[in-house]
Amino acid sequence: MKVKLRTLAISMTLIGAIGAPTFAAEELVKPIQPPKSINLGMAELGKKLYFDPRLSKSGFISCNSCHNLSMGGADNLPTSIGHNWQQGPINAPTVLNSSLNVAQFWDGRAPDLKAQAGGPIANPGEMAFTHELAVHVLETIPEYVREFKMVFGKDKIDIDQVTTAIAEFEKTLVTPNSRFDQWLLGKKDALTADELAGWKLFKESGCVACHNGENLGGTSFQKMGIVEPYKAKSPAEGRVAVTGKDADRFSFKVPTLRNVELTYPYFHDGAVWTLKEAVDIMGRLQLGRKFTEKENAQIVAFLKTLTGEQPRFTLPILPPSSDKTPRPQPFGK
Amino acid sequence: MKVKLRTLAISMTLIGAIGAPTFAAEELVKPIQPPKSINLGMAELGKKLYFDPRLSKSGFISCNSCHNLSMGGADNLPTSIGHNWQQGPINAPTVLNSSLNVAQFWDGRAPDLKAQAGGPIANPGEMAFTHELAVHVLETIPEYVREFKMVFGKDKIDIDQVTTAIAEFEKTLVTPNSRFDQWLLGKKDALTADELAGWKLFKESGCVACHNGENLGGTSFQKMGIVEPYKAKSPAEGRVAVTGKDADRFSFKVPTLRNVELTYPYFHDGAVWTLKEAVDIMGRLQLGRKFTEKENAQIVAFLKTLTGEQPRFTLPILPPSSDKTPRPQPFGK
Repeated sequence: MKVKLRTLAISMTLIGAIGAPTFAAEELVKPIQPPKSINLGMAELGKKLYFDPRLSKSGFISCNSCHNLSMGGADNLPTSIGHNWQQGPINAPTVLNSSLNVAQFWDGRAPDLKAQAGGPIANPGEMAFTHELAVHVLETIPEYVREFKMVFGKDKIDIDQVTTAIAEFEKTLVTPNSRFDQWLLGKKDALTADELAGWKLFKESGCVACHNGENLGGTSFQKMGIVEPYKAKSPAEGRVAVTGKDADRFSFKVPTLRNVELTYPYFHDGAVWTLKEAVDIMGRLQLGRKFTEKENAQIVAFLKTLTGEQPRFTLPILPPSSDKTPRPQPFGK
Repeated sequence: MKVKLRTLAISMTLIGAIGAPTFAAEELVKPIQPPKSINLGMAELGKKLYFDPRLSKSGFISCNSCHNLSMGGADNLPTSIGHNWQQGPINAPTVLNSSLNVAQFWDGRAPDLKAQAGGPIANPGEMAFTHELAVHVLETIPEYVREFKMVFGKDKIDIDQVTTAIAEFEKTLVTPNSRFDQWLLGKKDALTADELAGWKLFKESGCVACHNGENLGGTSFQKMGIVEPYKAKSPAEGRVAVTGKDADRFSFKVPTLRNVELTYPYFHDGAVWTLKEAVDIMGRLQLGRKFTEKENAQIVAFLKTLTGEQPRFTLPILPPSSDKTPRPQPFGK
């Protein structure tokens, strides 16, 4: 019975993911490619904006606060801390390799990075600002005014330019050259026997049905709790919020497994802190399979080979505010 | 009358600052020297710790949260945001060039950077952790264990090593080669006529009596409000908290003017956002002198020549927690 259920689950998810029930697992996972077409001036501007807390009401929270590039592009908290220490409803997904995802946010409500970037700025529970105020701050900072003009060739900054620049920077945040990618590219001694056994299990037990593509995830939406329901600590209901379809309740974007060693805690509610527990739960709830201790350890060993080269760059120096810059409002008002 | 008062104030502060009522102003200010003896391995470890929010209870606040190296080593807020969004009592001073200060904190209660570094970690209003818990977090992170051992040659991490490493990193955070320093070192066209006029005013009106040394400040404690009282928005009473002497009430460490263009808002209560207003208040309250619009603009122009080369370094990548690492407690508990 369990086997049957598992097979069914795999077939369903494969159909959802790639539209065909074949199982050419090696081809389902590909090494990450460094980005091929980056506007460097725009990415450099985007990097500053990504680190600039003046895009928040408080002047304290930047993109990097919750998608911390020192920490796997996440905040390593179950759910994030927003303006006035509000508790977020969902785990902050990593920004690393997010350009490879089919859509952004757990429910996929943003089609791309640019659309995503505007969300937290204006979310009252996150940066608690407005697009208008954020743009107004930027246009009072002479160095930004010059840099936007250089990059976009326009006399006036707008939110579209802001999110375009942030998205361009985020496109650079890929992590190639993990040991697994080295192995995929032909370095046959890049993985140990246990790691290879983990990869084999990952394929054969059906993990790869959802965690596939360059990003080992991010290619489809899947129900959390196929074989057994998942008792989430988060009120989020997933994809249904976007499609309105009852069938999409508790369906979430499959998260990437790239750098998963760095992006704890796991799942959309951030309830699980260890890969061991995450693998166990995924096996039982999604595949109807209870991995043995040894199998679990092998899969975890494989997952740790997915840690790629982290983006290395100089911390940006932000241009100073001018006397005309509106002041942050961290407390009250 | 005003002139007499001013002369008195200058003489008093000169005696306080350098112990002699001479007025060799050029010699009172010196160019910043790059640090001459840095333990690079220790500084690299310290950089990671400086950026690591796991030294806080919430897992969200690091040294860099309030002494942000993208923003002049400060947070550009009147007073800082601490654990649970608590409002701090005083403006966060810049970490830049802080190794050149005679002591740390506005009241000088820490004799050096090492003593300072332990303060915020254990302050319930800031990082809200304890030294014991911070060390316990670090000793569960294998990469940190190895790096501490490499740097300190001991089998066990302790808080003394943690603060020593952070202080070593902070020693690297000097900002040489400002335009003013280039001028001091002989590049006579480094300053404009207005900037030079500002420097002349800065010396002759007595600013340099307190704002002297390599750091144009940080060499002495002085009363805030010599000629006229300062109506502070902060409850802090300054140096009296350390010495217990009533004469030290409202006496604060003279802040550095290095990079002052970047370290707004100003004064220990962060009440003033523009250099124009800060110069006006300082003139009236400390020197009994009302600068004209033109004089004020010239002094501000001079102050902006004190922006040095900001520390440029690669954003550190932090080692991941292990399954044994205690979890952050951002909410409740």
